[in-house]
Amino acid sequence: RSGKMAKLTQLIDNEVFRAYATYATIVLVKMMLMSLITAYFRITRKAFANPEDTASFGKGESAKKYLRTDADVERVRRGHLNDLENIVPFLGIGLLYALTGPDLYTALLHFRIFAGARITHTFAYLIPLPQPSRGLSWAVGYAATISMAYKVLKTALYL
Amino acid sequence: RSGKMAKLTQLIDNEVFRAYATYATIVLVKMMLMSLITAYFRITRKAFANPEDTASFGKGESAKKYLRTDADVERVRRGHLNDLENIVPFLGIGLLYALTGPDLYTALLHFRIFAGARITHTFAYLIPLPQPSRGLSWAVGYAATISMAYKVLKTALYL
Amino acid sequence: RSGKMAKLTQLIDNEVFRAYATYATIVLVKMMLMSLITAYFRITRKAFANPEDTASFGKGESAKKYLRTDADVERVRRGHLNDLENIVPFLGIGLLYALTGPDLYTALLHFRIFAGARITHTFAYLIPLPQPSRGLSWAVGYAATISMAYKVLKTALYL
Repeated sequence: RSGKMAKLTQLIDNEVFRAYATYATIVLVKMMLMSLITAYFRITRKAFANPEDTASFGKGESAKKYLRTDADVERVRRGHLNDLENIVPFLGIGLLYALTGPDLYTALLHFRIFAGARITHTFAYLIPLPQPSRGLSWAVGYAATISMAYKVLKTALYL
Repeated sequence: RSGKMAKLTQLIDNEVFRAYATYATIVLVKMMLMSLITAYFRITRKAFANPEDTASFGKGESAKKYLRTDADVERVRRGHLNDLENIVPFLGIGLLYALTGPDLYTALLHFRIFAGARITHTFAYLIPLPQPSRGLSWAVGYAATISMAYKVLKTALYL
Repeated sequence: RSGKMAKLTQLIDNEVFRAYATYATIVLVKMMLMSLITAYFRITRKAFANPEDTASFGKGESAKKYLRTDADVERVRRGHLNDLENIVPFLGIGLLYALTGPDLYTALLHFRIFAGARITHTFAYLIPLPQPSRGLSWAVGYAATISMAYKVLKTALYL
C-alpha cells in the first residue's frame, strides 16, 4: 500500500499539478456557488420550477402563482450554464496541459488568467456590469483554454 | 511499451483510485440514463424541440402541434441539468482528492455518500417525492464535494 | 524538479494516453466552437438574453425588442447542451478507461468513433439533416462511452 501511495502522491507533489489542482478546485467551487445564489433568488423572489417546491405556500391557486420564471433567477442560471460551458473544457484541457510538463511560470499564468477571467465574468453577469465587461472576461478565459489546447495537441497529438 | 503500461496501471491498482473510478463511472452512467428517460417522455408525450423530429407525424400543422414543451419532459431535463451542475464538480474535485492520498475509509465514505445522494436526488426529482427530499439529497452531495475540495486545497494549495 | 517532471511526462508519453489527450481536446474544442456559433447567431439575428447586451441598439423600447428568443439561436444552444451532456461522461469515463491499460487499437477505435459521432451530431443538428441522422450519431457516441464504462467497471470495480 504505502509504495503505491507514494507513487500517487508524486503527482500531487509536482508544482504544476498542484497549481492545476488549486485553480481547478477554485473555479469548480465558484461554479457550485451559483447553485446557492440561484436558491437564494428562488426563495426571495418566490419563483420556483417544481410544484413540490411551492407546497409550503399552501394548495391550489395560492401556491401555483409561485411556479414562474423571474428575471434575477434566470440571470443566475444563464451565468451557471456559461460556467459549465467554459469550466468543463478548462477542467479537461487544463489537466492534460499540466501533464505535458509545461514551464511552471507559463502554467501558472494560464491558470491564473482563466480563474481571474471566470470570477470577473460572474461579477459582470450578476451585478450586471455594462458590456463589454462580460464579453471580454468570457473571451479571456476562452483564449487561455485554447492556448492550453494548442500546447496539448502540439505535445501529445496521436490521431 | 510494457514498462510504461506498468506505470500507468499502478494508478488503477491503487485502491482509493479504483474506488474513485468506480463511483465516478456509476454517477456518470446514471447521468447518461437521463438522456434515455428524456427520449422516452418525448416519444410517449409526443413533445419535441426540433421540426425534423416530428416529420414522421406528417407535414404542416398536423406535425407542428408536437413541437411543444411537456411538464414531464421538462422535469427530467431539469434533473439532467442539476446532475451536470453537481457531477462535474465531483468529477474534477474527486479526482484531485483521490490523488492527495486520502485514507481509503474516508475516501470511500465521501464517494459512497455522493453517489447515494445523487441517486436519491434523481428518484426525488422524477417520482417526485415531497420536499425537502430533493433539497436534502442535493445538499448532502454538495457537502461531500465541498469536504473533498477542502482536503484538496489543504494538501495541494499552490497559488 | 526534473525527476518529478520525468515521472509526469511518462503519462503523456504513453500512446493510449496520448490518444485520449488528442481526442478529448478535439471534442472539447469542438464544444467550445458552439459558443462562437451562438454568438454569431445572436448578433446576426439580433436576439439577446440580457438587457446590457442590447444597450448599443439604443434605449427603451427600441432596444427591448432585441430581448427575444430566435429559432436558430435556440437550435445551437440545444446542440451545445447536448454536447455537455455527452462530452462530460466521455471526459471522465474516457480518462479512466485510458488508465485501465486497454489495447491501443481498441482504445483508438473507441476514441475515434466517439469523436466522429459527436462531429456528425453537430452537423446533423445545425444544418439540420433529416432524422434519424442526429439520433443515430447521438446513439453511436453514447454506445462508445457505455462500452468504455463497462471496461472501467470490469477492471477497477471497488465498491
